[in-house]
Amino acid sequence: MTAAGPAASRLDEQRLARAALTYLAEPGDPALGALLEICDPGEVLAAIRADLLPGIGPGCGDSPAGRAALRRALGRWRARLPALPADADIAAACSGGDVRLACPGDAEWPGRLDDLGAARPYALWLRGGADLRAASAGSVSVVGSRAATGYGAHVAGEIAADLGERGWTVVSGGAYGIDAAAHRGALGAGAATVAVLACGVDYPYPAGHAELFADVAARGVVASEWPPGRRPARLRFLVRNRVIAALSCGTVVVEAGARSGALNTARHAAELGRPLMAVPGPVTSAQSAGCHRIIRDWGATCVTCAADIVEMVSPLGGLDAPASPAGPGPRSGPVCAPGRAAAGPSRDDLDADSARVLDAFPARGGTGTSTLAVEAGVDLDTVLRCLGTLAGYGFIERCDLGWRLRRTG
Amino acid sequence: MTAAGPAASRLDEQRLARAALTYLAEPGDPALGALLEICDPGEVLAAIRADLLPGIGPGCGDSPAGRAALRRALGRWRARLPALPADADIAAACSGGDVRLACPGDAEWPGRLDDLGAARPYALWLRGGADLRAASAGSVSVVGSRAATGYGAHVAGEIAADLGERGWTVVSGGAYGIDAAAHRGALGAGAATVAVLACGVDYPYPAGHAELFADVAARGVVASEWPPGRRPARLRFLVRNRVIAALSCGTVVVEAGARSGALNTARHAAELGRPLMAVPGPVTSAQSAGCHRIIRDWGATCVTCAADIVEMVSPLGGLDAPASPAGPGPRSGPVCAPGRAAAGPSRDDLDADSARVLDAFPARGGTGTSTLAVEAGVDLDTVLRCLGTLAGYGFIERCDLGWRLRRTG
Repeated sequence: MTAAGPAASRLDEQRLARAALTYLAEPGDPALGALLEICDPGEVLAAIRADLLPGIGPGCGDSPAGRAALRRALGRWRARLPALPADADIAAACSGGDVRLACPGDAEWPGRLDDLGAARPYALWLRGGADLRAASAGSVSVVGSRAATGYGAHVAGEIAADLGERGWTVVSGGAYGIDAAAHRGALGAGAATVAVLACGVDYPYPAGHAELFADVAARGVVASEWPPGRRPARLRFLVRNRVIAALSCGTVVVEAGARSGALNTARHAAELGRPLMAVPGPVTSAQSAGCHRIIRDWGATCVTCAADIVEMVSPLGGLDAPASPAGPGPRSGPVCAPGRAAAGPSRDDLDADSARVLDAFPARGGTGTSTLAVEAGVDLDTVLRCLGTLAGYGFIERCDLGWRLRRTG
Repeated sequence: MTAAGPAASRLDEQRLARAALTYLAEPGDPALGALLEICDPGEVLAAIRADLLPGIGPGCGDSPAGRAALRRALGRWRARLPALPADADIAAACSGGDVRLACPGDAEWPGRLDDLGAARPYALWLRGGADLRAASAGSVSVVGSRAATGYGAHVAGEIAADLGERGWTVVSGGAYGIDAAAHRGALGAGAATVAVLACGVDYPYPAGHAELFADVAARGVVASEWPPGRRPARLRFLVRNRVIAALSCGTVVVEAGARSGALNTARHAAELGRPLMAVPGPVTSAQSAGCHRIIRDWGATCVTCAADIVEMVSPLGGLDAPASPAGPGPRSGPVCAPGRAAAGPSRDDLDADSARVLDAFPARGGTGTSTLAVEAGVDLDTVLRCLGTLAGYGFIERCDLGWRLRRTG
């Protein structure tokens, strides 16, 4: 911890408390969510340690039933105290090596997650080279069955690659089947992708995806509400799904059986008011039954390709307005985060590398990645990562020659 | 012609005139449609023969532009006068052998066609053992590409068979591909089906379907706006499509390329306010692109099986109300013709054979076709035909033992 003064020290204390809370409480615990709406994380952690009811007062725990629920929650959280790492170890985990922590209010915190209200994550553990806020600014969740058919995997991969080529980030859950096909499709197109896991970002689950997650981390982000080392569990996947839905501009279900967990993600997207889409398939395939059901009964939009999806998640106006009077160009990198569209992105939002790569762009015409690397004085991997960030913020777009600045309003 | 008196003679004269007009004018000719709204068919025919502008007066042809349009139409119709069969031959065609004529107002005329307004057929030429009005009362149009895939043909056949087993009549266009699969599926289930052709009901087009049309005629109806012997032509298929859409309670597109003629039928169904449905398929299949487009852009309902379709075309109330307080039974034979649902069907609407078969039903419990044939004193083919009629009118429904009376009210 590098505290520069009392204020910074207090900030670090709150971040450290949030990190500790991810060890003690299951994500989505409504008691903790409600507490964090009215108390500092540090107060909550201190109360748990002291076995005192935290946050008693107006709005929380001020009824006998509320106090009883809080008492039970306190018992749950305290049960994990013995296994809580020491503060120094948590602090090291937050900012050491591969893994970092993003808390509400951080520069990297995606404001869109705040739409979850009291159910927003206490914090997110991240692993990977991209900035989560920038990468998810123009993103689509592509989810579906683990037991995907060849058809589903093919379509998920094609759609993800095409979204990637259009400057969109693909968010998914890192599972076998549709999720993996979506991540791989995005990576194959050289685009960023975000895997939201139901276990620690360093936990090898599924075991066969260790290499995939390394690839995701190299160009995008692996994210989790659970602390490093935490194992996945059945209910955790369901809890995790709300983050997949909340992180992106819209959710596409590619294949889902009638009782697939992907429909849970779809339900969250619908409840958040985000565009919900589904890819149809043969009516003879049980793996498409869930897609057809949500098209028919939930009003999910029937989409068949990336262009259909982009049309749904690109709001009119905002950053996706046509760049020239001649009509809309290829739609890349719109930002549909509620709080962002009006003001538009600023160069101040960029990390140093991305700002350097942006400055390396010629004022007119396109340029390639290797030229950018030379001009910006950074290596090729950094350029690729930064291109995702810059496209996500809407500064640049694809063109025949590679990438070019977007001319905005 | 067997005129029993002046009134019958006048009626026959009007029917004969409508028959003659099907020889002279192309179906859907707006000039003739408008004229028939205000003039007797006999007057119009006489005016064409006399080369006089017919129907000049309030509402029709009373402007210079209207008169010019009528003059041109008259020229078109008169051009075919030399090829018009003699009255006696037309009269023989209307009521001789295999073929008969149904005119607006006839007992067999499906009132639903009147929803087409001035574009309703001048008359319909029919071939087949079923009553068109009864057969189409509870009917669904199942249409799609001629260039169907194995998937599409399979699904069309399954859906049509299942609709047939539920007492619904399948209406289609008699073409190769989806149409043929739909007709065959219905026939395979022992149900009535209606083929609406774009050529004479005796014209062997497509040549490979002569046997199919014979099977359709044996248990259902082959119908056409064109007189016997008339060849099909490209535009005739499009004109015909409005009749397919208007005749049934709703239209299902099973497979359709992006520019398939089936989408033209779909458009008519939507314009008529009838339920429009589409069966999804692989997004990788060009033959499903039209289905996905109308689901996405036209609001067609995504349906995957006959149960989905029945749910769409069965209005609440009407004949499809639950038979018992315990909840809805299998939905069979609802009638959704606008003019019928309120009053419900009457035994007076039935042909003699169907009335006889209905009387042969036991008051309680189910019975089989062979028992019905013995009880009613008709042959098995007649029983099968009548069951379609009776189910179409909602008098009977399927049960474990075969068929039983529906308890209504």
